[in-house]
Amino acid sequence: MQNEFNFVNRNMFDLDDYSADEILHILESTKAMKEINSRSYKKIPTLRGKTVCTLFFENSTRTLMSFELAAHRLSADVVSFSANTSSLNKGESLQDTVLTLNAMGIDAYIIRHSYPGSPQMVHKYTNKPVLNSGDGRHAHPTQALLDIYSIWEKRGSLDGLKITIVGDIANSRVVRSNLIGMKKLGADVTICAPRTLMPSKMEEIYGCKVEYDLQRALTGADAVMGLRMQLERQRDGLFPSLEEYTNYYSLSKKTLKWAKPDALIMHPGPMNRGIEILPEIADSKHSVILDQVANGVAVRMALLFLILGGQS
Amino acid sequence: MQNEFNFVNRNMFDLDDYSADEILHILESTKAMKEINSRSYKKIPTLRGKTVCTLFFENSTRTLMSFELAAHRLSADVVSFSANTSSLNKGESLQDTVLTLNAMGIDAYIIRHSYPGSPQMVHKYTNKPVLNSGDGRHAHPTQALLDIYSIWEKRGSLDGLKITIVGDIANSRVVRSNLIGMKKLGADVTICAPRTLMPSKMEEIYGCKVEYDLQRALTGADAVMGLRMQLERQRDGLFPSLEEYTNYYSLSKKTLKWAKPDALIMHPGPMNRGIEILPEIADSKHSVILDQVANGVAVRMALLFLILGGQS
Amino acid sequence: MQNEFNFVNRNMFDLDDYSADEILHILESTKAMKEINSRSYKKIPTLRGKTVCTLFFENSTRTLMSFELAAHRLSADVVSFSANTSSLNKGESLQDTVLTLNAMGIDAYIIRHSYPGSPQMVHKYTNKPVLNSGDGRHAHPTQALLDIYSIWEKRGSLDGLKITIVGDIANSRVVRSNLIGMKKLGADVTICAPRTLMPSKMEEIYGCKVEYDLQRALTGADAVMGLRMQLERQRDGLFPSLEEYTNYYSLSKKTLKWAKPDALIMHPGPMNRGIEILPEIADSKHSVILDQVANGVAVRMALLFLILGGQS
Repeated sequence: MQNEFNFVNRNMFDLDDYSADEILHILESTKAMKEINSRSYKKIPTLRGKTVCTLFFENSTRTLMSFELAAHRLSADVVSFSANTSSLNKGESLQDTVLTLNAMGIDAYIIRHSYPGSPQMVHKYTNKPVLNSGDGRHAHPTQALLDIYSIWEKRGSLDGLKITIVGDIANSRVVRSNLIGMKKLGADVTICAPRTLMPSKMEEIYGCKVEYDLQRALTGADAVMGLRMQLERQRDGLFPSLEEYTNYYSLSKKTLKWAKPDALIMHPGPMNRGIEILPEIADSKHSVILDQVANGVAVRMALLFLILGGQS
Repeated sequence: MQNEFNFVNRNMFDLDDYSADEILHILESTKAMKEINSRSYKKIPTLRGKTVCTLFFENSTRTLMSFELAAHRLSADVVSFSANTSSLNKGESLQDTVLTLNAMGIDAYIIRHSYPGSPQMVHKYTNKPVLNSGDGRHAHPTQALLDIYSIWEKRGSLDGLKITIVGDIANSRVVRSNLIGMKKLGADVTICAPRTLMPSKMEEIYGCKVEYDLQRALTGADAVMGLRMQLERQRDGLFPSLEEYTNYYSLSKKTLKWAKPDALIMHPGPMNRGIEILPEIADSKHSVILDQVANGVAVRMALLFLILGGQS
Repeated sequence: MQNEFNFVNRNMFDLDDYSADEILHILESTKAMKEINSRSYKKIPTLRGKTVCTLFFENSTRTLMSFELAAHRLSADVVSFSANTSSLNKGESLQDTVLTLNAMGIDAYIIRHSYPGSPQMVHKYTNKPVLNSGDGRHAHPTQALLDIYSIWEKRGSLDGLKITIVGDIANSRVVRSNLIGMKKLGADVTICAPRTLMPSKMEEIYGCKVEYDLQRALTGADAVMGLRMQLERQRDGLFPSLEEYTNYYSLSKKTLKWAKPDALIMHPGPMNRGIEILPEIADSKHSVILDQVANGVAVRMALLFLILGGQS
């Protein structure tokens, strides 16, 4: 690896702290990790003797397992703090909980919490590198990195590509991190949703295009990402019915005709098949949805490796 | 190990897919693993760099820990998918869940699920070897293998032995797998239960003897296995009272007199002491109930070793 | 390490089984382990191939993680028995559960249970070393050892020191183990609580001083430990109100003036900040509360190392 970059002991709160060159360096490191994952013997001793602590305050088997596997494959030890059975239930503050964990000798934290800014708090209390694995509706940078890697791997570059993200933009932390990262790498990102699920001023804040019409959004797209429709939103009156949502915004054979013929199909999972995406598209030959999952393990390996200063 | 057998990448859905010679080869491998477990240093590096995923949709500390220990002792990594905290609760299908796990780079799956055929589904989706650890009332082959090993270890062979299984045959997946495996090895198996807990046509399907009278079932038995009485069955009206069940079918000093004097006493656990088996028998010198547990770890090590192609 | 002491295969039920010299040897071993924990590479291979089983029947993330980390850093495998999802829910006795676990080849047990004497039961059933991690209100020797180490590390000896423990003495297993251990090492221990939270005959049983007045208790103290006030006790009518408890017994700048100026501040955690201890004291320069947590991992490493016969 080149030594012009220094990731050691840095946090990954969100992608805005990383330059385009640094993001590209993460992608290159991810590629090296993916090669390791393709071996029969999927393990390197680089982080032996290091301890990573997962702090998940929201359920997420998918992301938690991805991080656990990433740590295992670098030979790090993992301890999992479970909010449910912890002293937090006895009235202890998050600060005291984290200070206690930290005193046990943790080298890095991976946190998911509904409160935006919680990764920054954990870092403040511990002075150890913290990887944000989702804080409220704010950011989810490792998901964005795996999304970006999944396009970069297939296309060689994001520069000048039209990437369209469709769905519940308002409630998606994945979108915000992707908008930051993809723009840094030169992509032209369009977001598309019903008006009730689209926050205001997205063009101004993120420099993206906003569309309410799926055809306009998809036309000429090189990559199309569907977002999970959280079904409980309907109860909140934010869209009239799932059928109407599906009629106007579902990724299907019919609607994907507006995109480029070889447009990559993406979804962060878990999918509501038949709602925001139809099986005919999710399982089509241009779908990279399962590649995204595989890339997630590799991108997390790369980050742990770079931040914990593993030797290659 | 001999190389006339090829277990690499095979599934263990049930014992009917394995020949008598193959089952005997598993038993020989189990013996080698048991020797490792008897050491102070109970670990070999043979599966280092491999990842095993447990998928338990029903609670089972006993079997889950046995598999985890087996994997640890072969130096494999283990990730545990917990159905309770997973995306399955967000409406994701089992297929998408398994495809997601598989994209993370799993080398083998161990599944327990209430749905018969679920191991076959997991294999279909992943194309990776799957070890069935209990699918509904259908099969539980690793339990059967440890039962078979426990007899084979003490008697050298099952050929011509009379093995009697007593209890809730109707709801037991252990019995079905044992009937297949024991018969392949030449044993003469008798099953015994009240009529309400005995399925029809067992003789035809499995070539075993069916008895409703405990004395006839036990007479001349070389090994006697009690099954766990699921206490909630009484509510279903399948037997009049626990006292009556115990009076007619309990394994006790009195009833074991009908078997051979050195008949092996077996039970898959957890036991209802005082119901299907009395402590005087469970803890007697011919009891191999705890040997069964120890052999369970060894038989699972042998299967993981053989199927994942470990080097000896 | 000296070989005049033999800890191999011994239990740690409570500190009364260990001589002052043996306790000092544990402290010396803890110091060596703490040095390992201060390294970037925090791991030694000494217990590779050994399996430790945690049996926690009460929630305790803090202590459980401390033991898990201790085992990881010595390269032992850990399996965790979870009471909630186990056969205990199917009516299996603790004896059968433990016998089953033991048959799987466990080298040592770590148990927390509400029933005093449960560690002795586990040892009786398994004949394997058992580390008591809290049995009802009876004992919690590893917590006492980390408390003792935290003073010893700072002062070089406990001989002649005045140590004051303040709070809910009646419900604290930590106090009982500390009283035994600290007295063995020559400390002069004072316990202080409202009369309703002070058991009778403590002077006679433990040779400590009993005070109901905080000023008398703290005067001249070299170390002061606050205990967690279990808030539900108020409902039981054992003290009139939290405000009154805090007025008379809280560790604060005001009350700590009675102790020596450099008195060590201790708390086993989790703290109720503002109740038994004020933040101004918990976070003061003489607080060793987070040292206690760090020392907890080291003391558990030392015990596992000594009892499982690790090679230095």
